[in-house]
Amino acid sequence: MKVLVVHAHPEPQSFCAALKTTAVNVLRDAGNEVEVSDLYAMGFNPVASADDFGTRANAGYCVYALEQRHGFANGTIRSDIKVELEKLMRCDLLILNFPLFWFSTPAILKGWIDRILVSGPVYGGMRFYDRGGLRGKRAIVSLTLGGQARMFASDGIHGPLEGMLRPLLQGTLAYIGLDVLEPFVAWHVPYVANEVRLEYLAAWRNRLSSLAMEPPLSFPSLDNFDESLRPLNGRT
Amino acid sequence: MKVLVVHAHPEPQSFCAALKTTAVNVLRDAGNEVEVSDLYAMGFNPVASADDFGTRANAGYCVYALEQRHGFANGTIRSDIKVELEKLMRCDLLILNFPLFWFSTPAILKGWIDRILVSGPVYGGMRFYDRGGLRGKRAIVSLTLGGQARMFASDGIHGPLEGMLRPLLQGTLAYIGLDVLEPFVAWHVPYVANEVRLEYLAAWRNRLSSLAMEPPLSFPSLDNFDESLRPLNGRT
Repeated sequence: MKVLVVHAHPEPQSFCAALKTTAVNVLRDAGNEVEVSDLYAMGFNPVASADDFGTRANAGYCVYALEQRHGFANGTIRSDIKVELEKLMRCDLLILNFPLFWFSTPAILKGWIDRILVSGPVYGGMRFYDRGGLRGKRAIVSLTLGGQARMFASDGIHGPLEGMLRPLLQGTLAYIGLDVLEPFVAWHVPYVANEVRLEYLAAWRNRLSSLAMEPPLSFPSLDNFDESLRPLNGRT
Repeated sequence: MKVLVVHAHPEPQSFCAALKTTAVNVLRDAGNEVEVSDLYAMGFNPVASADDFGTRANAGYCVYALEQRHGFANGTIRSDIKVELEKLMRCDLLILNFPLFWFSTPAILKGWIDRILVSGPVYGGMRFYDRGGLRGKRAIVSLTLGGQARMFASDGIHGPLEGMLRPLLQGTLAYIGLDVLEPFVAWHVPYVANEVRLEYLAAWRNRLSSLAMEPPLSFPSLDNFDESLRPLNGRT
């Protein structure tokens, strides 16, 4: 299996970085080929802009997704995007590893999503959800956060974490066709004792050894909608 | 009323930019003081990192929120953050204006959130949701997207847009204490006729003229939880 780990934490010694290192070691030891994009270490540019394209479909007005398609088809998309896109296209398993910032990804990782999920190879037209460009591959999100699990219970103050992660799990990973696994969550990280952190690492090692067999979460299927994306079940 | 418009679109001639300009003009004409942070035009740095702090609470290990508190208290937080934070603290109404990228904000705007919503003045400890640092102020999100409204119906392929926006509306804006109004959404923008765009602008002008009177959306209240953030209604 080929694995791509995209890691985004500003502190190299963080527990989040330990999750990343654990993933790399466990998956390599199991015989997989693992690539890592450590976005902070790379100084990754997260800002999607017209500068991402050498030649332009329309030099006077930038529609980012149209320029992505043009740039990819003509090989004129920026080289940092090309490199990351190739890593993404050749992986069988994508791991996004990050600390939860404002109930979502740090901006540097959001920018990786904005720039690397290129319209054309990754999605486009009716190629999304279970017809997305990356179907057949798997993805898992592993994250650290300060809050406690009970704050994210159904009667917790924030409500379920899966709801907060919907733009990422459904709107991004499932949207491009990936089979999305249940997230791995390390709760309350800045406040827990070292033994708890070690338990998290042990639990993560366990998950990592069986990711290829885990049943994915359920997301929308284009099979339930007509060509105009109206539901096929008779309701409108 | 003092207004801060934070705008984030890579194309200066976009319809999204027209929404921003409309907001500025309508609100200024009504006698309000309006400031604009045009993040792309400013070349705003969206990457939260240890470089954001002059002196450090802990120079050997960066916990971003702790460094924010230290940097704010000691006046050593980076000047670009200080300037934006002052705009935020003095506004009565915050408008976030952006195109939906992957069912959330463009990375440059996510980075404004990551860096400017500084732990200490903006939130911290039990100062969040209806006890957040910005209570008494209002916020509205105005956004453009490619999808059609029916794709976001309760039986639509993506499900309700409010669900996708939860990390932003609840987890960010309501979290810091703002009264969050119903988003203004311009659907299917790249594909609609010019008349439809003009209708969107007219509808936006209407909304803008009554934002101060609109009832806000409902979000969690700390009044319903105990000091350990357990629900007070008897369930656990």
